[in-house]
Amino acid sequence: MVRTLVIDTLKKTGQTVLLKGWVNARRDHGKIVFIDLRDRTGIIQTVLSPELAGSLHPEDVVYITGLVKLRPEKLINPNISTGQIEIEVQSAELISKAAELPFDMGSPTLNVELPTLLDHRSLTLRHPTVRDIFTLQSAVYQGFREASLKLKCTEIFTPTISASATEGGAEVFKVQYYDHSAFMVQSPQLYKQMLVPVFERVFLMSKAYRAEPSVTTRHLSESTQLDCELGFVNFRDLLDALEFVGKNTLKYVTKTCHPILDRFNIPHPNVDNIPRLTMREAQKIILDRTGIDHTTEPDLMPEDEREICRWALETHNCDLVTITHFPTKKRSFYTAPDPKNPEFSLSYDLLFRGMEILSGSQRIHDHDELVAAIESRGMSPQNFKMYLMAFKYGMPPEGGFSFGLERLTMQILKLANVREASLFPRDMERVDFRLS
Amino acid sequence: MVRTLVIDTLKKTGQTVLLKGWVNARRDHGKIVFIDLRDRTGIIQTVLSPELAGSLHPEDVVYITGLVKLRPEKLINPNISTGQIEIEVQSAELISKAAELPFDMGSPTLNVELPTLLDHRSLTLRHPTVRDIFTLQSAVYQGFREASLKLKCTEIFTPTISASATEGGAEVFKVQYYDHSAFMVQSPQLYKQMLVPVFERVFLMSKAYRAEPSVTTRHLSESTQLDCELGFVNFRDLLDALEFVGKNTLKYVTKTCHPILDRFNIPHPNVDNIPRLTMREAQKIILDRTGIDHTTEPDLMPEDEREICRWALETHNCDLVTITHFPTKKRSFYTAPDPKNPEFSLSYDLLFRGMEILSGSQRIHDHDELVAAIESRGMSPQNFKMYLMAFKYGMPPEGGFSFGLERLTMQILKLANVREASLFPRDMERVDFRLS
Repeated sequence: MVRTLVIDTLKKTGQTVLLKGWVNARRDHGKIVFIDLRDRTGIIQTVLSPELAGSLHPEDVVYITGLVKLRPEKLINPNISTGQIEIEVQSAELISKAAELPFDMGSPTLNVELPTLLDHRSLTLRHPTVRDIFTLQSAVYQGFREASLKLKCTEIFTPTISASATEGGAEVFKVQYYDHSAFMVQSPQLYKQMLVPVFERVFLMSKAYRAEPSVTTRHLSESTQLDCELGFVNFRDLLDALEFVGKNTLKYVTKTCHPILDRFNIPHPNVDNIPRLTMREAQKIILDRTGIDHTTEPDLMPEDEREICRWALETHNCDLVTITHFPTKKRSFYTAPDPKNPEFSLSYDLLFRGMEILSGSQRIHDHDELVAAIESRGMSPQNFKMYLMAFKYGMPPEGGFSFGLERLTMQILKLANVREASLFPRDMERVDFRLS
Repeated sequence: MVRTLVIDTLKKTGQTVLLKGWVNARRDHGKIVFIDLRDRTGIIQTVLSPELAGSLHPEDVVYITGLVKLRPEKLINPNISTGQIEIEVQSAELISKAAELPFDMGSPTLNVELPTLLDHRSLTLRHPTVRDIFTLQSAVYQGFREASLKLKCTEIFTPTISASATEGGAEVFKVQYYDHSAFMVQSPQLYKQMLVPVFERVFLMSKAYRAEPSVTTRHLSESTQLDCELGFVNFRDLLDALEFVGKNTLKYVTKTCHPILDRFNIPHPNVDNIPRLTMREAQKIILDRTGIDHTTEPDLMPEDEREICRWALETHNCDLVTITHFPTKKRSFYTAPDPKNPEFSLSYDLLFRGMEILSGSQRIHDHDELVAAIESRGMSPQNFKMYLMAFKYGMPPEGGFSFGLERLTMQILKLANVREASLFPRDMERVDFRLS
């Protein structure tokens, strides 16, 4: 018999089906046993005799043959999608026996602390509310891809091992590379810029490694970064592209994952009519609204990001807001200063519900200006030879942006910790297991 | 004026257009100057007065305004897609001045040796025949994605930093991870298997790091790996999935990149009616055809792969052939032995035009059998705790396959060296520049 997926049983009332999955929970009621069977599409109640149920217990892999029956009205379970039906089991074949679980996995929510969640990661990921996070994460990437392809970007595959620290700074992981020392890249930034003269418009998914000895709820040592970079563009083109990608990624996630958003009690995002403000304009609005004067601060504080997002929602009915013109000194060396006022830069952040989710800038595309910018940060142009070569031989005006996949997943689902948004998070204390 | 892409000038005869791109070549003919302008969509001839042409030279970024004119019949260039037209230039604005090139980039083929090609990678990638390789590479990945999505696989994002060597073996890169030592993964194999009980079917793109001190034409220290892994499958399901992905990836590449295949003189692949042979059957056919007796060898030799592909093409008109049942000892520990003859395994390779391009197997899914397999290879189950946890709590029958993106790109385009199929290849001697 061909396998029927749990979700497809809804169309097969009165038929005998073969289901394959895991025991999600077992309830013994004297002469009958209820087993909730889980597969990738859902959970369904099956009804067995104690003989058939045998010693089946949670996470056993089982193949069940049975009749799809409508439940009596009063036994309908509105909390699961197959709640109107159940399976009258004819045979149950144990395929793979599970060990006794260290904690209950059969409840609608998984009540374990973060260390336990991560110590048992290859078990806890199976829980439907944990799995939901990563189903949505795959949709974030797919939405990003589709938006990038619509912008006519070509996908590229960049290296993660580098001869020098990508963007300056000491917080890089060192790798023993044959008889030499090399580094894991902090971002694919320099490589994507080098490919503008090749494809003009590129996008990519890559890894970003950050060795800051940080244990905050926002920090991962290894994260997944999504990037776009576009040539022959001015600042306005870049803002349009940034908002196009941000908006369409969120739209795709909403369209394909609205049941997950609903299960997490997340309102569907409003992403049209995105307001644009300079950082100084945003600080002025915050002063007017709250009386708190951050108008001379060199950056938005976390509470400023939250306040300006409240403003955007109230005045523009939009969950996104674009902030531009951050101080040149606060951004990376390749960021183009605003020619009208070089103290501020042609940079931008896209904020979503209180947090920055995409960030980028127009870049310096003149070779000599770029060399000067590298030197002004106390770095040596010698360490950027392959990068500078792209500028030496004719680089058009260009810019781009990037975002962290785990961080955006966290922000969309309002997770408390970015580690919950990484399948196997790496941090200062953990590589699958706690480092001793 | 809005920019017109080179390819779109074909529809604009008699109109004035703004083109943006690079000087691909310059030819001075007394009172007129020809400049071939290149952008991401093609090359077009422009005609300028010496005054307008000024000192423009190869790789300068230039914005050109001019009239699109049909060329006289006898001046049509059949070798470029815009060969029937040219641009009568009205103005030329230099946007970014390029330094003098170290070698000619304006010819249809780039005649430089591999070290030169790589020493100037951020320049040489611009050459249309080099760029073609990576346009096709992006199509390989897109074709793989579409096939994987059709198989209902969920995309996953797996870590590259690991606490222990993934699949045994000493040839791993060691990374200084805060106060600890960690390793770069040899493949995402163990992680994708751990996600079968979560999503049942997964696919991913990731990095594979191999520290073999090898300088062959097939070896990269860092490569891009594409993977699928499927649960609730038997050996036949896996062969079907393998061939579905292999066939449809090649079909997508042929459909979207046939002009590139034509430029590289590569015949379009025949991918239907893929024959299946066990390794022993293949060796027998090779003996019958060539008189060379490899029927007791534990693997196919490179010349065997070429011969059996010739056989597949001659007898089945197919550029692909699936080989199964390699000796258990020759495959990784997680490979399931054939229950009918455990000396051979439920493994498979998909060969394409003389070389293996996809490889995989049915996996051992029983926890205790897997522990025994690890121990039988002299490894410690302690190093596989998170992996084994996935099997301890109920793993269905499962298997999968993977392929190297650069290697498949190399094989499709018949490149001489896999380094040509990596944007920025990492090998024993090179990280962008030659390691001293």
